[in-house]
Amino acid sequence: MSVTNKIWKLRKRPVGDVSEGDLEFVEEPVRALEDGEVRIRTVFLSLDPTNRIWMSDRDQYMPPVEIGDPMRGGGIAIVEESRFDGLAPGDVVNSGLGQWSLYMIKRGEEVNKLPDIPGVPLTAFMGPLGMTGMTAYFGLMDIGKPKKGETVVVSAAAGAVGSMVGQIAKIQGCRAVGIAGSDEKCRWLTETAGFDAAINYKKEDVAAGLDRHCPDGIDVNFENVGGEIMDTILPRLNDFARMPLCGLISSYNATEPVPGPYNFAMFLMRHVTLKGYIVTDYMERFPEGMQAMGQWLSEGKLRFETDVVEGLENAPASLERLFTGKNLGKLVVKVSEPE
Amino acid sequence: MSVTNKIWKLRKRPVGDVSEGDLEFVEEPVRALEDGEVRIRTVFLSLDPTNRIWMSDRDQYMPPVEIGDPMRGGGIAIVEESRFDGLAPGDVVNSGLGQWSLYMIKRGEEVNKLPDIPGVPLTAFMGPLGMTGMTAYFGLMDIGKPKKGETVVVSAAAGAVGSMVGQIAKIQGCRAVGIAGSDEKCRWLTETAGFDAAINYKKEDVAAGLDRHCPDGIDVNFENVGGEIMDTILPRLNDFARMPLCGLISSYNATEPVPGPYNFAMFLMRHVTLKGYIVTDYMERFPEGMQAMGQWLSEGKLRFETDVVEGLENAPASLERLFTGKNLGKLVVKVSEPE
Repeated sequence: MSVTNKIWKLRKRPVGDVSEGDLEFVEEPVRALEDGEVRIRTVFLSLDPTNRIWMSDRDQYMPPVEIGDPMRGGGIAIVEESRFDGLAPGDVVNSGLGQWSLYMIKRGEEVNKLPDIPGVPLTAFMGPLGMTGMTAYFGLMDIGKPKKGETVVVSAAAGAVGSMVGQIAKIQGCRAVGIAGSDEKCRWLTETAGFDAAINYKKEDVAAGLDRHCPDGIDVNFENVGGEIMDTILPRLNDFARMPLCGLISSYNATEPVPGPYNFAMFLMRHVTLKGYIVTDYMERFPEGMQAMGQWLSEGKLRFETDVVEGLENAPASLERLFTGKNLGKLVVKVSEPE
Repeated sequence: MSVTNKIWKLRKRPVGDVSEGDLEFVEEPVRALEDGEVRIRTVFLSLDPTNRIWMSDRDQYMPPVEIGDPMRGGGIAIVEESRFDGLAPGDVVNSGLGQWSLYMIKRGEEVNKLPDIPGVPLTAFMGPLGMTGMTAYFGLMDIGKPKKGETVVVSAAAGAVGSMVGQIAKIQGCRAVGIAGSDEKCRWLTETAGFDAAINYKKEDVAAGLDRHCPDGIDVNFENVGGEIMDTILPRLNDFARMPLCGLISSYNATEPVPGPYNFAMFLMRHVTLKGYIVTDYMERFPEGMQAMGQWLSEGKLRFETDVVEGLENAPASLERLFTGKNLGKLVVKVSEPE
């Protein structure tokens, strides 16, 4: 019986914001499985700032998506057909790095079966127990090295990564200050996620906000954004501050060269350590991260939100939510039912 | 018997290059010693890029020199009078952080008596065995972490720090590529100091030079300069490259805000570790650095040059040699005779 797939393919490289026509939605038959393979059906597709990087041909950390190829992405999927011993139809898996499609064929060892933890919804595996959770955990713990009593600032704080960073910082006994783009997000950060303070960069003077909320300076700047906000943070860093560099979303849609921070000299003057990383750098240590995040989640110490968009057909248009600051928490596309 | 001092004092903050009238040369009587103090006479005064930082009131790693205060500096001195048990007239010492003056009064414990090593000239204590040597050693070894077979690039390569960095890199089994500002310097780097290659940034296309001389990319960028040269290096860094940030001399005389590197995103894309440091961060480990550098020096593995300017009265005017690329090796002012 032939199965028809739906796939988003990259038609041309976006200039600036992703716009209609940059990707095209095509239907294709799914081929038959070979031994050792599984056919999985996407339930939740993860939308992430890095998707925009992959669409461009700028110098980046992986090869870009080629024109005509399926758009790269991953998420949670359900096994529909298996010729791999370790997986059976109905198993829920993390699809690993795949594509923006309804179905995927994968080698069985490329996907990971998700544990069924009572009280933990599936969306947690897109958030605290997913790639964004691991990104927050290892960036903050391994590069940020937060010490009790220190001040941690995080930009894009209401996003999937940022919201975890602040909460982990609190668990470590730090002061957590978030920067986000709406009053609603700032309220969520302080009232629900337990941040000590939040600054709405669209309404407030970020410099004044940082001065008010970080009276002892900044020891860790978890950087997701770059641009002016990063430049405002740099002169407020304490000596020997650490700066996990996780993202620079403010420049991903740029069509002109973007200058680096005018306060670059602060890295020297304040003895700062900056380290760029990609979550897969920590792949071998994921069990440690899952253990810690799972523990905190079960203790009710991590709150998370999922911003669910319905329908794979809406994936490209939904990506802009990340760049215009519309999403609160993890942005996902619900592609099919989890059953 | 009264002794008359000669001191350079900061009269006003330079705008751009240091110019006549920014400092003034004054004579003052030296006060009598108290118990535990020594009077030392400067033999060699060290001139360093950081002097320019101290003259400005920009945000920096130490308080700036106040207007009207003696200009800050250090070097090698000889004890002329002592009321401190551990030091006697005639002892040669490292003056520690002092001032641009003929005489200084210091607490005995603030200065370090230099060992008398056969075959090692006094100027070595301003170079490989001095602050610049320690700066090169710890920046490269502790932050750069060079591994055998890797490629190390250093800017301001013919300077006091850069020339040591490249030679230590060679000792570690690395490929050393220097960037310097004249053919004479480039020749010295490759023919005398043993660098694998040198690029004259005033004549050559730095990008093309790096591509030619670093066929396997760059693993360590020892950064002394900043600006365009740094920006040209960044896209050529390998994954997980390290970047000791020692100086940003290209911006020290700037009168307008200087943009950071346009290729800042490379820190993220290439998983780069950048660490700003000041040599005093490693004060406690100086014995280790002195031991290693002393050993290599005695084995003939470290070549160094000293650019000696005669006369304390010429100190301010000589500082520009560092910014216009005139000096080869360590720039010092000979203030008095070493006897």
